[in-house]
Formats: sequence, structure tokens, C-alpha cells
Amino acid sequence: MLGDYRAAQVRDDSLRKAGYHLPMAVYTEVTDNELAEFLRAFDLGEARGFKGIAEGVENSNFYLQTERGHFILTLYEKRVRREDLPFFLGLLEHLSKKGIACPLPVRARDGAAWRELKGRPAAVMNFLPGLSPRKPDAAQCAEAGAALARLHLAGADYALSRPNALSLEGWKTLVKQCEPKANGVKMGLGAVIGSELKALEQNWPRGLPQGVIHADMFPDNVFFVDARISGIIDFYFACNDALAYDVAVCLNAWCFESDGAFNITKGRALLTAYRATRPFSSAEVEALPWLARGAALRFLLTRLYDWINRDEGALVRPKDPIEYMTKLRFHQTAGAAASYGWPS
Amino acid sequence: MLGDYRAAQVRDDSLRKAGYHLPMAVYTEVTDNELAEFLRAFDLGEARGFKGIAEGVENSNFYLQTERGHFILTLYEKRVRREDLPFFLGLLEHLSKKGIACPLPVRARDGAAWRELKGRPAAVMNFLPGLSPRKPDAAQCAEAGAALARLHLAGADYALSRPNALSLEGWKTLVKQCEPKANGVKMGLGAVIGSELKALEQNWPRGLPQGVIHADMFPDNVFFVDARISGIIDFYFACNDALAYDVAVCLNAWCFESDGAFNITKGRALLTAYRATRPFSSAEVEALPWLARGAALRFLLTRLYDWINRDEGALVRPKDPIEYMTKLRFHQTAGAAASYGWPS
Repeated sequence: MLGDYRAAQVRDDSLRKAGYHLPMAVYTEVTDNELAEFLRAFDLGEARGFKGIAEGVENSNFYLQTERGHFILTLYEKRVRREDLPFFLGLLEHLSKKGIACPLPVRARDGAAWRELKGRPAAVMNFLPGLSPRKPDAAQCAEAGAALARLHLAGADYALSRPNALSLEGWKTLVKQCEPKANGVKMGLGAVIGSELKALEQNWPRGLPQGVIHADMFPDNVFFVDARISGIIDFYFACNDALAYDVAVCLNAWCFESDGAFNITKGRALLTAYRATRPFSSAEVEALPWLARGAALRFLLTRLYDWINRDEGALVRPKDPIEYMTKLRFHQTAGAAASYGWPS
Repeated sequence: MLGDYRAAQVRDDSLRKAGYHLPMAVYTEVTDNELAEFLRAFDLGEARGFKGIAEGVENSNFYLQTERGHFILTLYEKRVRREDLPFFLGLLEHLSKKGIACPLPVRARDGAAWRELKGRPAAVMNFLPGLSPRKPDAAQCAEAGAALARLHLAGADYALSRPNALSLEGWKTLVKQCEPKANGVKMGLGAVIGSELKALEQNWPRGLPQGVIHADMFPDNVFFVDARISGIIDFYFACNDALAYDVAVCLNAWCFESDGAFNITKGRALLTAYRATRPFSSAEVEALPWLARGAALRFLLTRLYDWINRDEGALVRPKDPIEYMTKLRFHQTAGAAASYGWPS
């Protein structure tokens, strides 16, 4: 029986070899006493359950059950800047008021939307029901398109603003940092990102309708109950930018198959549902291929950066950057919105 | 803003340097569709929430909310042997029936206590309220002692049995495997485990009252609501052995301070509460120091084994083995049960 001991060691070797990503981490441990003290600032009663959960790559998240119900406790780790919290948490309150199903911060007794826990800002949010689709189908893509359009409309009169740090200027910095080592990840990748950046600098669409965008609405940030969206989470890349760029992010995130092929049925479903709620201008339709290229480069670059700078012992495996090189190549040949299923 | 990108990379370097342990992992990912299919075998309705949680080092655990309530879904990874599941899950049912607050498997429509999910045995358990104490105080140690005694009484008529793979014979194997590299972890550690094993072989108490023991009742496996125990989890080391050995495991796990000092007040609280529910025989009282040495060696050896065979890229950091060398040294000089606070 003891002979099993070694063989039975749980390792993630096999996962790593498969290029597997475990999107999970609890970076900060919170003890029962620390939680109890934190909760005294809220009108939530005492904790009845508290478990670190595998949700959100950037922060530490906990499932929290109290005498008043169940919640998510988020500790903001380094990557979310304290000075951005008024924008993020205010946005969640604004969107909730407008009927968007998103996390709503529970205000503390003193009215604060977040307090300190373990030297980090920490917020308690309502618990959103639902499950994220692993492989969204066309109907779910349509739901995502409609939800994104509703989100854009709801955000239109949000008072605060936040620039998009991961647009053209940000890509320039990332290309500079990643180019020297990019070929070590995949031969030719350095040239791909260098020349794509140049092309985008010359062609990046300007003057499109702006507003608050989610900027990271991947399927794992969207919950469904039955066939309907029950919640959208992880607004920590939200910022002000072209609304159609957010659609381009979703085309990248929702409409490719795992073999790298773009599924035009899913694209059509997403775009048709989006424009039924918020019509596209002709400039937005025309801009779609360049926006899609920009969105692909954005995720290619941040994933490449994480890959190059990964820590072999880190708890979170970086996501595969090459997936987005494949997507970028598709967009480079797309030519027109029709390639994404834009209904002519 | 982009300049932050690098600095803001979330790493666990600082955690690792601090010798920190994050007792969490979800080894196996379960998609929404896989979960839906799995749940069709149960009378639990559809999933309304599903989150990988940081609980249990050996298995993958998920918080599961369905139309019928909330549950824990456990996927048994390699370290739990399939042939042991009837013992483990049967024990949970047996103990639940006797009023012990422990996870109770929800039986599938076909009556099975577990089914397959992702090629692994998987069980759905009721959700136990409560929080684990990080630094249990004397009152919590007393609760633990009383709960352990109740557990021993409740397990007395359990029909199945399972030998303790991590007793004397198992330690021999582990010493053989660890000795060559032990001094690389800490100079002199090889001699410590070698000579302790010899001493235990000559002095290991025999003929003590036997029964089902938890064998791993650490504070993180015990939940409290207010001052009372609301649940005991993680029975996957449970086996048949001397009941007093289980008490010795708890003395090791509950009654030392973080500086390595034994807290005799906590020891007395635990022992007094235990014997109020299940009296010790004089042989058990006498055996306590040797049982405590054995328990310390057991955790020293498995932690040492994990440490020596750790994978730098593994998701779970091994726990510090040296903590148990310090505890072992205390037990070696303890001499009599009075050193643990046994009330004379």
C-alpha cells in the first residue's frame, strides 16, 4: 500500500505537458479571526462558510456564507490598482441599478464599497447564480452579443472614466518588451507582432462611438442559468474605448473553435443579437476586421508577456499565446465584416 | 500604466520564501456540460453555481449549488484508492446516522454513493457550515477532544475495516525512501528519523483499545460555528488503529504554538474533554508519549517525502517537515502523559 505513495503523488506534470491552464489561485490566506473582524464592519451577521475559490486570475476570491446569505469576497491583489477601485466598484453599482446582472458590492456600515483585509482592498459582492459555458454554442454567443449591447447602453451615462491601458500605446510597450524573446516561444513570432503593430498603428480605427467596455468578456466571465445569461463578472479591465472594440474582443473569445477555425454561425449569432439591441454605425461595421486584429494582438501580447515572464513555480500557468497568433492570422485575411457573419 | 504590468505580475515568490503553504488545488476541470450530465444521475435538479474550491489537498473539490440546495462535489484523485471508497463513504453514512456532523454522500437515483466524472469516482456531499480555526484556543481544543471521543464511540460498530497504511510498517518504508536525502533538507535529520524509527519499533504500544480513527483531524479539517464544532471533514486517512493514537495525532495538530512550544493548557483541555466522553484506560495513559512520538514521526515522514519529491512547478507546496521534527523532540523528552496536561 505504501508503494503507492510515490506513484500517487498528485502532480500537474501531465496537465502542464498538455498546455493546460488552471485559472485559479488564492494568493492571500484569510484566517477565521481576520474574517470575523472584517465582517464586523458589515451588516451581514457572522460567517457560516468560507472557502477560497478558483475564480479570477487577478484576485483572491472566496465563497462566503453568512447569516444573511451567500456572497463572494474579493481581495484585490497587486494587479488591480487601488486608485481604480472607485471606477470598477462604482461601475458595478451603476450597471446593477440599470438591471445588468453583475456583482454588486455590499456596502459596509460606514457606507464604504470596500474595506481593508490583510492590507488589501476587499469587497463583498452578491453571489451570482449560473455556470460558465466551456464551449459556448451559437445560442449562447447570441446571448453574449445581446448582453454586451445591453451593457454598453447601460454604461453610457456612467460618470467616471478610465483609459484603456491595453490599447495601441500599451501594445507598443508590450511589443518592445516581448519582441527580443518572442522567437524563443515560436519561431517567427517576433516578426508577427512587430509587423502587426505597425499595420495597426497605420490603420487603427478612430472616431468610433465610445463608452464603457468590459474589455475581457470571455465565456468564463459569463454565467448562464439554463439558456439565459445570469451574470457577468470580472470587470477589472473595464475602461472607456470604442464599443465595437468590445464586440471584437467577444468575436475572438466566443466564436473560434478549439481547432482554431472561426465559426461564422457563432459570429453571425453574436453580431445579429448585438445589433438588435444596439445598432452598429457603418463606420463600426467597416472597422470590425481591424478591431478584431487589435483585439487578437492585445491578448497575444499579454499572454506572450506572461509566458516569457512566467515563474516555473507559479501557481497559475500562463495561457497559451499561440492561440491568439492563429486568431490574428484569420483576422489578417478577413477583409470585411462579412467574414465574421455580419448580416449583409 | 503599462509600466505596472511587469511589477504587477502575480507571483508566489514571496509566499514561497516565507515557506508558505497554500493548501488548495483543483486538479481536474469539470465543464458545465460534464457537470450537467453527471447531475442527471441525481435527484438534485440543475446546477446554479459551481466553483472549484481550495479544500482538501488530496482531491478536487467544488462548491455546488443546485435547485435543491448547496453541496460539495468531490472528485477522487489518484491518492484515494477506488477500492477504499466503500470504507470511506460507508463510514460517513455510518457516522452521520450516529449524529456526527460530517459530510454525508447524497445517493444517486440508482442508490450509488458515488458515480464517475471525468474518469474519476465522484461524490456529492451535503454542505457543512462553519469555519476552521487557524489558531485554535484552549476552548476549541476541548471541543476537538470531545468531538474525537464521540467520533470514536460512534465508529465502534462500523462494519468495515481498513488497516492503517501509515503506521509502523509504513514508516519503515518511508524512512528507507527518505533517509538518503533527509540531511539535504536539514543536517542531522537522517539520523533523527532512523533512530526514532528504531526506538518506536522497540516501544510501540500494543494491545490498546482499537477502533475507527480519523487519523488526520487537524484544525483545518474541523469547522466551528460560534464556539461549537459544526463539522469534521476529510476522512480519507480514516482506518482502524489504536484510538489513543488518534488523540496523539490531535495533541500534535492542535496543542503546539507556532513557535514550536507545546501549550499544556490546550493539551489538558483536549485530554480532559476527551476522557469525559470516552475514558482512557491506564495503558492508554501510559502509552501517550510513545503514541505522540509515533504521530509526530508519521507527519514528519510524509511531509519529508513530499518535500524531497516535490515538483518545483506543482500547484501545491509541500508542508514544512521541520515543524514535526521540533514536535518530535518535545515528545522525546516528555516522559509521561502529565507532560501533555493529563490531569493526575
